[in-house]
Amino acid sequence: MANQKLWGGRFEAALEDWVEEFGASISFDYRLAPYDLKGSLAHVQMLGAQGILAPDEAEKIKTGLEELLAQYEAGQLEFDVNHEDIHMNLEALLTQKIGPVAGKLHTARSRNDQVATDMHLYLKEELGQILEKIKRLRQVLLAVAEENVETIMPGYTHLQHAQPISFAHHLLAYYQMFKRDFERMSFNLKHTDLSPLGAAALAGTTFPIDRELSAELMGFADLYHNSLDAVSDRDFILEFLANSSMLIMHLSRLCEELINWCSHEYGFVSLSDTFSTGSSIMPQKKNPDMAELIRGKTGRVYGHLFSLLTVMKSLPLAYNKDLQEDKEGMFDTVTTIKTSLDIMAGMLASMTVQKERMLAASQKDFSNATELADYLAKKGLPFRAAHELVGSLVLECSKQGIYLQDVSLERYQELSDLIGPDIYQALESATAVEKRNSLGGTGFEQISLELERAKRELQEDEK
Amino acid sequence: MANQKLWGGRFEAALEDWVEEFGASISFDYRLAPYDLKGSLAHVQMLGAQGILAPDEAEKIKTGLEELLAQYEAGQLEFDVNHEDIHMNLEALLTQKIGPVAGKLHTARSRNDQVATDMHLYLKEELGQILEKIKRLRQVLLAVAEENVETIMPGYTHLQHAQPISFAHHLLAYYQMFKRDFERMSFNLKHTDLSPLGAAALAGTTFPIDRELSAELMGFADLYHNSLDAVSDRDFILEFLANSSMLIMHLSRLCEELINWCSHEYGFVSLSDTFSTGSSIMPQKKNPDMAELIRGKTGRVYGHLFSLLTVMKSLPLAYNKDLQEDKEGMFDTVTTIKTSLDIMAGMLASMTVQKERMLAASQKDFSNATELADYLAKKGLPFRAAHELVGSLVLECSKQGIYLQDVSLERYQELSDLIGPDIYQALESATAVEKRNSLGGTGFEQISLELERAKRELQEDEK
Amino acid sequence: MANQKLWGGRFEAALEDWVEEFGASISFDYRLAPYDLKGSLAHVQMLGAQGILAPDEAEKIKTGLEELLAQYEAGQLEFDVNHEDIHMNLEALLTQKIGPVAGKLHTARSRNDQVATDMHLYLKEELGQILEKIKRLRQVLLAVAEENVETIMPGYTHLQHAQPISFAHHLLAYYQMFKRDFERMSFNLKHTDLSPLGAAALAGTTFPIDRELSAELMGFADLYHNSLDAVSDRDFILEFLANSSMLIMHLSRLCEELINWCSHEYGFVSLSDTFSTGSSIMPQKKNPDMAELIRGKTGRVYGHLFSLLTVMKSLPLAYNKDLQEDKEGMFDTVTTIKTSLDIMAGMLASMTVQKERMLAASQKDFSNATELADYLAKKGLPFRAAHELVGSLVLECSKQGIYLQDVSLERYQELSDLIGPDIYQALESATAVEKRNSLGGTGFEQISLELERAKRELQEDEK
Amino acid sequence: MANQKLWGGRFEAALEDWVEEFGASISFDYRLAPYDLKGSLAHVQMLGAQGILAPDEAEKIKTGLEELLAQYEAGQLEFDVNHEDIHMNLEALLTQKIGPVAGKLHTARSRNDQVATDMHLYLKEELGQILEKIKRLRQVLLAVAEENVETIMPGYTHLQHAQPISFAHHLLAYYQMFKRDFERMSFNLKHTDLSPLGAAALAGTTFPIDRELSAELMGFADLYHNSLDAVSDRDFILEFLANSSMLIMHLSRLCEELINWCSHEYGFVSLSDTFSTGSSIMPQKKNPDMAELIRGKTGRVYGHLFSLLTVMKSLPLAYNKDLQEDKEGMFDTVTTIKTSLDIMAGMLASMTVQKERMLAASQKDFSNATELADYLAKKGLPFRAAHELVGSLVLECSKQGIYLQDVSLERYQELSDLIGPDIYQALESATAVEKRNSLGGTGFEQISLELERAKRELQEDEK
Repeated sequence: MANQKLWGGRFEAALEDWVEEFGASISFDYRLAPYDLKGSLAHVQMLGAQGILAPDEAEKIKTGLEELLAQYEAGQLEFDVNHEDIHMNLEALLTQKIGPVAGKLHTARSRNDQVATDMHLYLKEELGQILEKIKRLRQVLLAVAEENVETIMPGYTHLQHAQPISFAHHLLAYYQMFKRDFERMSFNLKHTDLSPLGAAALAGTTFPIDRELSAELMGFADLYHNSLDAVSDRDFILEFLANSSMLIMHLSRLCEELINWCSHEYGFVSLSDTFSTGSSIMPQKKNPDMAELIRGKTGRVYGHLFSLLTVMKSLPLAYNKDLQEDKEGMFDTVTTIKTSLDIMAGMLASMTVQKERMLAASQKDFSNATELADYLAKKGLPFRAAHELVGSLVLECSKQGIYLQDVSLERYQELSDLIGPDIYQALESATAVEKRNSLGGTGFEQISLELERAKRELQEDEK
Repeated sequence: MANQKLWGGRFEAALEDWVEEFGASISFDYRLAPYDLKGSLAHVQMLGAQGILAPDEAEKIKTGLEELLAQYEAGQLEFDVNHEDIHMNLEALLTQKIGPVAGKLHTARSRNDQVATDMHLYLKEELGQILEKIKRLRQVLLAVAEENVETIMPGYTHLQHAQPISFAHHLLAYYQMFKRDFERMSFNLKHTDLSPLGAAALAGTTFPIDRELSAELMGFADLYHNSLDAVSDRDFILEFLANSSMLIMHLSRLCEELINWCSHEYGFVSLSDTFSTGSSIMPQKKNPDMAELIRGKTGRVYGHLFSLLTVMKSLPLAYNKDLQEDKEGMFDTVTTIKTSLDIMAGMLASMTVQKERMLAASQKDFSNATELADYLAKKGLPFRAAHELVGSLVLECSKQGIYLQDVSLERYQELSDLIGPDIYQALESATAVEKRNSLGGTGFEQISLELERAKRELQEDEK
Repeated sequence: MANQKLWGGRFEAALEDWVEEFGASISFDYRLAPYDLKGSLAHVQMLGAQGILAPDEAEKIKTGLEELLAQYEAGQLEFDVNHEDIHMNLEALLTQKIGPVAGKLHTARSRNDQVATDMHLYLKEELGQILEKIKRLRQVLLAVAEENVETIMPGYTHLQHAQPISFAHHLLAYYQMFKRDFERMSFNLKHTDLSPLGAAALAGTTFPIDRELSAELMGFADLYHNSLDAVSDRDFILEFLANSSMLIMHLSRLCEELINWCSHEYGFVSLSDTFSTGSSIMPQKKNPDMAELIRGKTGRVYGHLFSLLTVMKSLPLAYNKDLQEDKEGMFDTVTTIKTSLDIMAGMLASMTVQKERMLAASQKDFSNATELADYLAKKGLPFRAAHELVGSLVLECSKQGIYLQDVSLERYQELSDLIGPDIYQALESATAVEKRNSLGGTGFEQISLELERAKRELQEDEK
Repeated sequence: MANQKLWGGRFEAALEDWVEEFGASISFDYRLAPYDLKGSLAHVQMLGAQGILAPDEAEKIKTGLEELLAQYEAGQLEFDVNHEDIHMNLEALLTQKIGPVAGKLHTARSRNDQVATDMHLYLKEELGQILEKIKRLRQVLLAVAEENVETIMPGYTHLQHAQPISFAHHLLAYYQMFKRDFERMSFNLKHTDLSPLGAAALAGTTFPIDRELSAELMGFADLYHNSLDAVSDRDFILEFLANSSMLIMHLSRLCEELINWCSHEYGFVSLSDTFSTGSSIMPQKKNPDMAELIRGKTGRVYGHLFSLLTVMKSLPLAYNKDLQEDKEGMFDTVTTIKTSLDIMAGMLASMTVQKERMLAASQKDFSNATELADYLAKKGLPFRAAHELVGSLVLECSKQGIYLQDVSLERYQELSDLIGPDIYQALESATAVEKRNSLGGTGFEQISLELERAKRELQEDEK
């Protein structure tokens, strides 16, 4: 027997309240309201069509649900914490409206398949919006790239200057990342656009329901073929959290670069006032707050992914209350991803590119040493000799604190009479960029081809 | 220059609103209100004492802050999303109340050290409450153990019956886990009970402040000795999230066992109605919802830990906006841990232990084979011979589907004339438990000693 | 200037060794050897075809690489830790074999695109093998399901008996999970089956290479269209780690159930000796070691996913040494997933299903209360009255410790004269299962349909 | 019955081998060899002292173990994959050496408490070494700080110049982080320095063992007081992984800064050749490989933490095979942390600080605007007027692309006759640094005090 003394002594009368609150979900699942109503509408129409409910019963419930949906859309529904979740809140509201016939809506349905249905409807719609926002970000990247094909900047490896590149080329690398994100989010629909409705508690139902009809009425492309799976599967959410983790990882990389680029040390871009915070004393100061915040929000999205993976680990079939923990992380990820995509698009579209600073930076290194060797080789100097000459000249310059483009023609001609005044042209960053014209390389011609290809891709996604 | 067409064309006039909302934190940092007010009270008193503010200025601000605190405690403060965060909300309210002198409160202070101060005050208080709740859970475990010293159950390895143990011994294993959690949360105070106030934006201040005085007024045990560290350190929160992860991991293990124990297959305990949900049709059905939910919430706490670790990775000094992401996970973890501890204590205190089911289960296996061999060895049979005899008898029983305690005395005496009727006593689970009397073992004597030790420990924690 | 005293005083002469070892990767990237050789073979053929190398140079290098590949396959290659990584090891071996012309292999290539190429070739091959193993597991599930269509077991929610189901239905739920895993791993190929070769260090190359030719020679379906992206993209590995996390999560759920099912308390299945460990004393004891180990390895796979997500967070373009951390987790995940799939298939194929225990368990509850109400309703009793009658009978039984099937016909007929001897048939678990014949439900007819559908799917995957 | 056809048909004869290999741990737990031998030595001495083994048996086993330990230390032991783990390997070697009496070593012990003992001994020793390495890193930070008290650099918030600081102050912020790491690793010993030996399989033993004696012989400070807890607790490893995650997070922040500082854009430090890789063509290029690699290894350590947290989630008591997954992550973390600490200490000790570049950078902003306002205020200008004057001057400068220190005295005196030639001194970064002399601030005096305090702390840790 339970230890009544122990129990009674330590806990207060109002115990049930906080325990119930711990178990309740209305504080976050209210977001599912319109999906719950749409799912119920499809369900009741199917029940009517199959003769499981009498025509007038089905009609009455349908009308009640439609009114609730209208009220919801007008912002007129209020939920009560005493009704544990969104399903029971809506049932109570429906009962208020149409009386006890409301109870018949639950024929051949359980909260287990109902909540799964709501989640699929919700995520399907949000995936559609996220796909649109990724597409817009890709368009913005293309637009900024298009204006910067001939903007030269240092290309980095190990955050050290490596070879000069076109700024457009750098932006197009991000275009590729977001294109893959788009493809992943599209694939995510495959396991989201499925109806679990009719799986009932776990085993299906003895009523002669028509799951294909209700799925069609809700606009689902297909349905679950195993009722245990239908109520306990959360793969579609895990896919979304994994895809979102990769997406925000890409955003975090671009944010890190923007933060670097708008620092005093780089000065490559200026962010617009909307996306940065200033200081009343230091007019030149613009903190890249939004870029920092998106970078910081990477943690949140990763955390949600790991959270749900942990919940699902070694959970036996079928429904367990643990599964209630699937929602908050998903909702928060949807909001975070949508807003981050919008803000990134806005930040890029409104930033000012400091083309001269970028170009100047690309000229402060020896990344054009290869160009000098090539120059000599083309004029006939054996490669080995060319390489040696360049090596010792670089050493000489570096002692004097100058670069190859600063060496006088006189000195060049002392070193080799193959060198003429055209050497300065050969040493320019733009020349180095132009010549890297292999497929997918930074050469201007390649960039133009890739811009065209990207535009065609976006048009195809439109279809 | 920014691409005005691109920018203007794609984004609407009301742009600034949603961008600002993305950056705002008042929707969650309102929880810091009382700590922010207490920190400000200490700051203004120090400014007055040091002559940085005139006596009447300091007094006026102090009175204003005290009024705000009283209003807050009476539930009368309202915050406005237009003031980005809790600091600016309170500043606006103070200005409303006492006029522009309110602005002087910010002398020698920055939002960077202010928010850090709030977080330290908040977490210090919550750690105190969590320590109390862990202590109560340990008390409940002791109380239930005390009533179950002689309750015998199967001890498991690999979820297979291994050796019979006392149920009290099983509960005391969890006592040890929560004792370690208590020690970790206590250690957590070391890096939490520190004042960052006076670090200003990042470098300290030129004002002659007295950081030790303000720390003392806020009740802090010590203060940060490096201003850059003071504004960018989040170790105290990471420690809390790591400690909470271990704590909820322990809870998840106990929940898993409770869920097993109250299943049809085990039937070892019955949970009280408060902590389970029933079914109107199946009166015997009690879903262990609360145990499942705590187990599920393990994911949430792990997720928050990983989230903040991700945020902090490779963040340069000193303050970056990414750090704003430190709050929601901490708040949610505090709530989750506190409620989970309460619910676990309540669940254990109110459950009914099915002692007979436990005992019966401990008798359905060959875990007493060692006892038979010991019996024979003590009566003089060489160990090797004893072991052989037991081995073949176990095989014989297992073919017949019976256990050692079911073998007739006749059959026993056929096998060896050393065996007498006292063999059945020797084969009992209780005998096996009693004899495992090594330090920390399941023997009843050991359990009594450990119960005494545990009570002394709890009394010492009280001091 | 560096502090020579500090430095010299604290560190020893052999410093360089351990620092180099920290940076070296040959201890794990040796696994890439055959892929590195195949990539080099394609590269040199392309260089020859484009006239970038002279025909005899290309031929000589090609022959050398083919010999190395043959030696590798014969297990005759040895790698040296002094050559940092697999690329430099193979280059050294090639130089030994064919002399300095080996150096020309690196024309128009960098280690950055070389290592990316190796990883794509490696993962593409392993994905192929993993797809085969998932398919085999699905086949095993179907085979075991086919033999257990009419095996009745309790269906669980909250680990409490809910409604009786067919064991085949339970297995088919896992079939669905692994089908989705198959689809995800197939999609993973889209971003894996791409050639990065020719991206060079980061910006492409000035040599007239033909990336499409080398991609074709390596058997890649497509190539990267941005050189910065090609060397810094690790999405294909992240996708693999996320897909593997979901796959092993599914395995962990099945393992948890197997561990429960083979416990004393359930006794639903017996694992074969190969997949369990015994005890010399307790012949009936079989620890489900392999199921526990797979469940435990879930942590490892999740860990690798989070590890690489952390590495990639806010990493600027293009190559950074951090990216070297992409390999060990991927290798370990490949091994873990492949072996876990094999072991799960073996465990299921070789286990003994205790059909009678399962059936008996499905009869120890009131999950057939609904069946009694349905029986009465069909015979004409209004539903409300039927429900009331059942409710009070269940209460009565539960006080006596019996179930509905244990109530005498006499007592039944006292309660209602609508009840005849056919009531016992109606109350049987098998009847309850049979009647849940909605699409995807547990009804026998549905299961047969789903078995057929699943077989067709597997045949289509074969194509 | 198992489906023999299915099973036999799909799997080959050699099946057992790969299944056994999956379960084996000798490929990684060989690292525990010396700890296993030391634990066994203590155990056998205790068995002898308690008369559980005869004196000659105990002596024979002890001698055998000592010989094995000597052989191990001489690198002469070889392990065999056929003996699953390190315990069985050593038992086999001992049996070879001293015959069947070796088997008696396992009296009153199980592999469950044996492996736990090994892990505690191992981690205790490694924690000792890690504490030493953290101390050395703190010493290096102090040494470099001591040489850079008057080295001025820009202090950053949002990676934007905020206020000038001393480079020593920046280094001391990291000193504080590593001091906390030291304290956490010290606390970690509390739950590591405990003997589980004698817990046996899970319940203690019937033998009259003396656990305090064996604990003392192994040098443990205390012992576990619950046998179930002793074999299933992994908190001490989780603490270590959490502490390591925080430690490497701190290292990642410093690495990020070093990578920034040695970029072209900053040029604040040059790393020594040992810790960077160069390029044969670009002599000025030094990739900060080691800093990037440590930053990258953050992922690995976080991953190991999450891996073990996942393993432990909802694991019932007592030993489960899942726990075997505790080792590889711990071993890898020990190696990663130790090497990373050494490399960081080496990198800092050997780097060259470019003091002039740092100072120059601190002068390229308006962070001294506050200093001008203060200058005017001290000379008697009301603060409001001073602030206004400064504001408009900053705007004027910023249009001309100059800073306050570039404004001519003439122009200054036009603005206010309070300004004299001493203004330039007031505007210097060094002046701004010096004046921030609040406790823990960047003022030179504070830094000297903090250096002294830190040295005393390190001396106390020494005791």
